[in-house]
Amino acid sequence: MKTLAEMGQNAQNASVVLSDLSSSEKNAILNKCADALIEKMDDVLAENKKDVDEAVKNGLKDSLIDRLSLSPARIEDMAKGLRDVAALPDPVGEIISGRTLYNGLILYQKRVPMGVIGIIYEARPNVTADAFGLCLKSGNATILRGGKEAINSNKITVNIFRNTLKEMGYPEDFVQIIENTDRETAKELMRLKEYIDVLIPRGGAGLIKTVVENSTVPVIETGVGNCHIYVDEFANLENAVKIVINAKTQRPGVCNAAESMLIHEKVAEEFVPMVVKALREKDVEIRGDEKFRSIDSDAVPASEEDWGTEFLDFIISAKIVKNVDEAIEHIRKYGTKHSEAIISEDYTNVQKFLTKVDAAAVYANASTRFTDGGEFGLGAEIGISTQKLHARGPMGLKELTTTKNIIYGNGQIR
Amino acid sequence: MKTLAEMGQNAQNASVVLSDLSSSEKNAILNKCADALIEKMDDVLAENKKDVDEAVKNGLKDSLIDRLSLSPARIEDMAKGLRDVAALPDPVGEIISGRTLYNGLILYQKRVPMGVIGIIYEARPNVTADAFGLCLKSGNATILRGGKEAINSNKITVNIFRNTLKEMGYPEDFVQIIENTDRETAKELMRLKEYIDVLIPRGGAGLIKTVVENSTVPVIETGVGNCHIYVDEFANLENAVKIVINAKTQRPGVCNAAESMLIHEKVAEEFVPMVVKALREKDVEIRGDEKFRSIDSDAVPASEEDWGTEFLDFIISAKIVKNVDEAIEHIRKYGTKHSEAIISEDYTNVQKFLTKVDAAAVYANASTRFTDGGEFGLGAEIGISTQKLHARGPMGLKELTTTKNIIYGNGQIR
Repeated sequence: MKTLAEMGQNAQNASVVLSDLSSSEKNAILNKCADALIEKMDDVLAENKKDVDEAVKNGLKDSLIDRLSLSPARIEDMAKGLRDVAALPDPVGEIISGRTLYNGLILYQKRVPMGVIGIIYEARPNVTADAFGLCLKSGNATILRGGKEAINSNKITVNIFRNTLKEMGYPEDFVQIIENTDRETAKELMRLKEYIDVLIPRGGAGLIKTVVENSTVPVIETGVGNCHIYVDEFANLENAVKIVINAKTQRPGVCNAAESMLIHEKVAEEFVPMVVKALREKDVEIRGDEKFRSIDSDAVPASEEDWGTEFLDFIISAKIVKNVDEAIEHIRKYGTKHSEAIISEDYTNVQKFLTKVDAAAVYANASTRFTDGGEFGLGAEIGISTQKLHARGPMGLKELTTTKNIIYGNGQIR
Repeated sequence: MKTLAEMGQNAQNASVVLSDLSSSEKNAILNKCADALIEKMDDVLAENKKDVDEAVKNGLKDSLIDRLSLSPARIEDMAKGLRDVAALPDPVGEIISGRTLYNGLILYQKRVPMGVIGIIYEARPNVTADAFGLCLKSGNATILRGGKEAINSNKITVNIFRNTLKEMGYPEDFVQIIENTDRETAKELMRLKEYIDVLIPRGGAGLIKTVVENSTVPVIETGVGNCHIYVDEFANLENAVKIVINAKTQRPGVCNAAESMLIHEKVAEEFVPMVVKALREKDVEIRGDEKFRSIDSDAVPASEEDWGTEFLDFIISAKIVKNVDEAIEHIRKYGTKHSEAIISEDYTNVQKFLTKVDAAAVYANASTRFTDGGEFGLGAEIGISTQKLHARGPMGLKELTTTKNIIYGNGQIR
């Protein structure tokens, strides 16, 4: 088996070729890889079955097994994902800005690929196709390191792509997968600074923390979302119920789902019974502070830990606050700078919330569930950045590129 | 003395106030701090003398003592730097893009401050004023950690700023300095992820490496520049000599100075004697490969290590190459992705070099010394990024900001 350093060197060599491909060439590769996935569907399903059988044997949770399982429809989705990315505009080559300097130098900034992108992810084999598609379209070679639960599915998928690349006459190393899934290998990948330009973790809080703490390669931190809905004194309460229910229950396992509601004390008496009824209809467990429980005695007492927890489940914490300032303060203390919403018809409170809350996305009168590359019009996303460097919020193709200063002179010196 | 965590919390609290200030308020602070520096010049000089005396006693190199020493003219420069930053346009609040989504949501991206910026630097007390000015103008609270050699100079400078802030009725903690200059404190700062949004090291390769390897706070890597001048077969050789001399000798201690020249074999016989004569007039030591030394026998043999060394001194390495491809290959192997130049009148070779060389700035027929915030028209710079995330090349005020997605709805759910 190749060492990680060899894989890094191969990726870097491949990236030099890849960064030079035209949009048409990259799109042809993506469409051909999509075709190949469909053609080889039976092989993918067979390899996936090995992973699923192993997971069942090891007693993995149903939700994890569901994420791990591929079906003909899911493989068709993976193929469609590649075709969709092929259809997106190519970010590479855009001239972002430029000027002629005082001394006649012509300076411009051009968008170029990063080079080599490492993706560390968990037991979702569809990420393999997703990440490959976005990285390839943005001109980057990819090194994938998926979870051990999905290793057979990931290997067959990457091999299908590599064979397609080979048949088309391109370097197979546009995409590589690390077959050794032990922790040491992941840590070694995080320190492969010489070859990897950016590392993107996709997965739960634990994975992301490990990568942030161990990586010397620049990291884009994605994903953890302890999102709040603040229901203001001047909220349209019917909208508020609708938005809380949507943000909490439409898909509770994702990072832009709401985990907590903050309710202005002046509307609590009226709003709490309304929202409680709707939440209980959806079997959501409510963990309330003392004031909340004085109105709804069926709520579970919220612990200090609950305020900081991303439940990713049918659980929501609830707190009664004095005003918008207390809501903002609470979010500053417990939020993860992902997505935060105020429900209010009051101009000043809305503007204050949107300005003062420090998060990738701040909403007035809408569900936090919209923080998503597709919804934001990016076409596809590689993740949602919760850090402030480079990219914030949903990251599309553009966020997988960097810029380069190009200068034309005719003998200028300083 | 405050703990680092307390300082971090104070900076975060101050940043909430600072992020809300108007441009006029920030400019008034900067101008007032400039006035205060001039008024208290004698105090600054007295504290600086302590540092310089200590440095002399400890036998520091003359070049370091020169960097450390302040004079009335240098303090005036520091004050002027603050006024210059006040005069620059404010990056905060710019609406970068926006659209109305399919469902009526109004989405836009606004430029906002990062929050808290940490700066780790070495024995140059002028960086204290510089960094404070740029961070304040971009709406960020700053925690400074300068080198121990300049601690007295740094403390008095920061105290002058803090007193000015206090007199004006603003939180002093817009800027703080870490008085404990041991290594453990620096490492603790690098892990203060809860409070610091970005860490920028300014200094030599050793400092930057330490920060990159130890920091869990996102880092912008700056500065190391092993820059090459490639003299092509079709170079205007007089331009080439002029550019090599400028890039090597105009200011050899800076990161955009050239460290190596690559010479096409077809022009070597003619060019080597020309460039050697000019370099020797400037007392530059030349370390050549075997082919170079077959033309100039006075050159020192270049070691493998020399190709990868940023000399920051009157030393240059020199290699004869077969063609532009070999030059590009050599730069890929030994370059630090800072600034690289080709000297050529050949259209194809120029375009190939500019496209294929992976660096923050690539030049045709100009000196690498232009990679600089002032020269690029940014007004001022906090450093030159050699990484690909967030910013590449000279970083001005804009690069000290991030963006925020702001969404106005009227009840939208998914």
